Amino acid sequence: MMNNVKIHAAIITIGDEILIGQIVDTNSAWLGQALGKMGIRVNFRTSVGDVKEHILNALHEASKYADIIITTGGLGPTKDDVTKQTFCDYFNSKLVMNEEVLEWVTQIFTKRNLPILDANTFQAMVPENCEVLFNKSGTAPGMLFQHNQKIIISMPGVPFEMKTIFEDECVPKLKQYFTLPFILHRTIQTTSIGESFLADKIKHWENNLPPHINLAYLPSVGQVRLRLSAYGDNEIEIRKELDSIIQELYKIAGEYIFGEEQENLQSVLGNLLKQKNATLSTAESCTGGFISHLITTVPGSSAYYKGSIVSYDNEIKISELGVNPTTLEKFGAVSETCILEMANGVRKKLKTDYAIATSGIAGPDGGTPEKPVGTVWIAISSEKETIAKQFNMGDNRERTILRTALQGMDMLRRLLLKTS
Amino acid sequence: MMNNVKIHAAIITIGDEILIGQIVDTNSAWLGQALGKMGIRVNFRTSVGDVKEHILNALHEASKYADIIITTGGLGPTKDDVTKQTFCDYFNSKLVMNEEVLEWVTQIFTKRNLPILDANTFQAMVPENCEVLFNKSGTAPGMLFQHNQKIIISMPGVPFEMKTIFEDECVPKLKQYFTLPFILHRTIQTTSIGESFLADKIKHWENNLPPHINLAYLPSVGQVRLRLSAYGDNEIEIRKELDSIIQELYKIAGEYIFGEEQENLQSVLGNLLKQKNATLSTAESCTGGFISHLITTVPGSSAYYKGSIVSYDNEIKISELGVNPTTLEKFGAVSETCILEMANGVRKKLKTDYAIATSGIAGPDGGTPEKPVGTVWIAISSEKETIAKQFNMGDNRERTILRTALQGMDMLRRLLLKTS
Repeated sequence: MMNNVKIHAAIITIGDEILIGQIVDTNSAWLGQALGKMGIRVNFRTSVGDVKEHILNALHEASKYADIIITTGGLGPTKDDVTKQTFCDYFNSKLVMNEEVLEWVTQIFTKRNLPILDANTFQAMVPENCEVLFNKSGTAPGMLFQHNQKIIISMPGVPFEMKTIFEDECVPKLKQYFTLPFILHRTIQTTSIGESFLADKIKHWENNLPPHINLAYLPSVGQVRLRLSAYGDNEIEIRKELDSIIQELYKIAGEYIFGEEQENLQSVLGNLLKQKNATLSTAESCTGGFISHLITTVPGSSAYYKGSIVSYDNEIKISELGVNPTTLEKFGAVSETCILEMANGVRKKLKTDYAIATSGIAGPDGGTPEKPVGTVWIAISSEKETIAKQFNMGDNRERTILRTALQGMDMLRRLLLKTS
Repeated sequence: MMNNVKIHAAIITIGDEILIGQIVDTNSAWLGQALGKMGIRVNFRTSVGDVKEHILNALHEASKYADIIITTGGLGPTKDDVTKQTFCDYFNSKLVMNEEVLEWVTQIFTKRNLPILDANTFQAMVPENCEVLFNKSGTAPGMLFQHNQKIIISMPGVPFEMKTIFEDECVPKLKQYFTLPFILHRTIQTTSIGESFLADKIKHWENNLPPHINLAYLPSVGQVRLRLSAYGDNEIEIRKELDSIIQELYKIAGEYIFGEEQENLQSVLGNLLKQKNATLSTAESCTGGFISHLITTVPGSSAYYKGSIVSYDNEIKISELGVNPTTLEKFGAVSETCILEMANGVRKKLKTDYAIATSGIAGPDGGTPEKPVGTVWIAISSEKETIAKQFNMGDNRERTILRTALQGMDMLRRLLLKTS
């Protein structure tokens, strides 16, 4: 695995606010992705408080793992920031004034008609042995050190400053210092199948993956993303190889694959409807408007989505969706007959080509021995056919709503593919 | 501050997906806060890949810093998860089948009519020396180890599973193992006011807080939570003091406070409606069903919520809500006249006591010089009165939908309080 990856990076985020959870550390994830795209693999990551000994310890530890050590945070003008002095100790260096940075800081404050305090001037002091990484988004510069065959980079913790410095300054320098491999990532999105069932279904394919191609399962409620990472020297060959491996995957598990990369079910469904020049409405009981919400998160969804009748109350199923009162009496709202009437009812009433309907017991109350909490009926309707399916979505209200919504959209997606 | 804190914790998150940045590590921040509330301070945090040596190294490193080591992740059923075997090596233990967990896993699969695969059975294998932490939200159990005067806890990485295990199992056990200081937390929930305006409004009150009471602003879109943490020895006195400080806050900013602790706007609104024995419906255009979704996330909401007509398309505003076609021609859908007709229309049609209606331009397209993206009309309607208000919610689609939903619910909450 990963035989071709020779360059490793470590990330150290500095700041008490990260440790106590006041801030979610998004910098590390961003850097992990940005480095990964360059063929540099992060294999160590840690967060420490603004404490000299802890920072030194983290630097020593990181140097066991990585060729590149990147730190973020701890460069603010306030007194609890000890990072720069710690670097001086680590490198046996001292702080000196950098005239170029001082001029930049002075300019910023002059432009904004603000007085320059000592704390601001201090931002232009950097360890003597560093190469300054210019920060066009703020006053604290980044720093790059070469030390014992390693590159050590320090950047401020403010995300947009860190990102600018990394892209403008670090990427070109890292490409200069290291010979980087080519790496290609592809993400395949699946739904309507659990992680272990998917793993079982594709295990033969997975076992046959060549050693330079990695597979990762990334599950969330109702969905599993498969991420493939391919390493190599010849970009064209790698692309070809990965393409053909993914084609194989489609042959085995294609019915569960709804999209790739950043796509989601609602955007894929929207594109299919647009292609067909078709419209959609929904009739929601147990999902309470959540399908409608997901569909309308997509910009431009008004082109195909007309609306929903959320019939939380049975009266509304009768008055607005035309459900037969006898259906409710005889079978209840969570029944095949009712869901078929709901789906057809809303499609006709809102004059759309397709409709999705849901009715179920999201819980925690309302379950019976015959229809326990989690029992859900979903129907999709078109002029030609109406399909209803029953599910048990488990006993958590929130997840039942989410799973039902995804399942409903996926049922329609499959119908649209079948009829195209 | 926090002089009383003697117990330290370390967090280790395990998984390649975290290192390479495919997943943002939110577990660490959540745990940092949850531990902080118990008076336990996180002073070390690291992420490692699914590599035995790296996990072992992280455990050794963490044990230098902390009395409690918490790991999340690496417990999935797929083959790349090595965590459990690593714990066996670390403790010189071996994996054994836990019958209780096996029964639980079997039950889950039987209930959902799914076959049990070997990978699922393996979830019930745990190191012999562990105390099982029951996972009522999933199949992978948590584990607690006592080792060299330290507590080591391993939990799955799926956030909702981790949270459930931590709250149900870890909190009581940690309170048993350690003598923790008394800390009282109170959370006050505000809406319809921005962070800086709120800070300005309450600055005198804030400046007068005694040194043993901490205030933190926790802003999110459309809401600001104020968290007060009081440290002390005498629980009764601390409670009294905090109560009277919060009473003062209500006097200054009471109109913006909609609830306390874990309450949210939809549950508060639901309780007010239940108290009045009143019913609610909604007519949603730009929020696309999101208000309906939020309201129906509350268990038991069917007692007061009847349903929604999501009129994404103007035709539906006319046919289902009785909006006058002339209104749409003359003023457009995003207008005072239209929103009043929508709110009254849905209230009458779905026969409810109250109604909320929304219509606006969520963007990114559809804006005009007179009605730029972010322009939103909201109305609330009762038999006695109908109130409409115009807002500009900014140029981000997702945030406009969220802010509009919260604002609509808050307008109704204020009306219900006024008339009670």
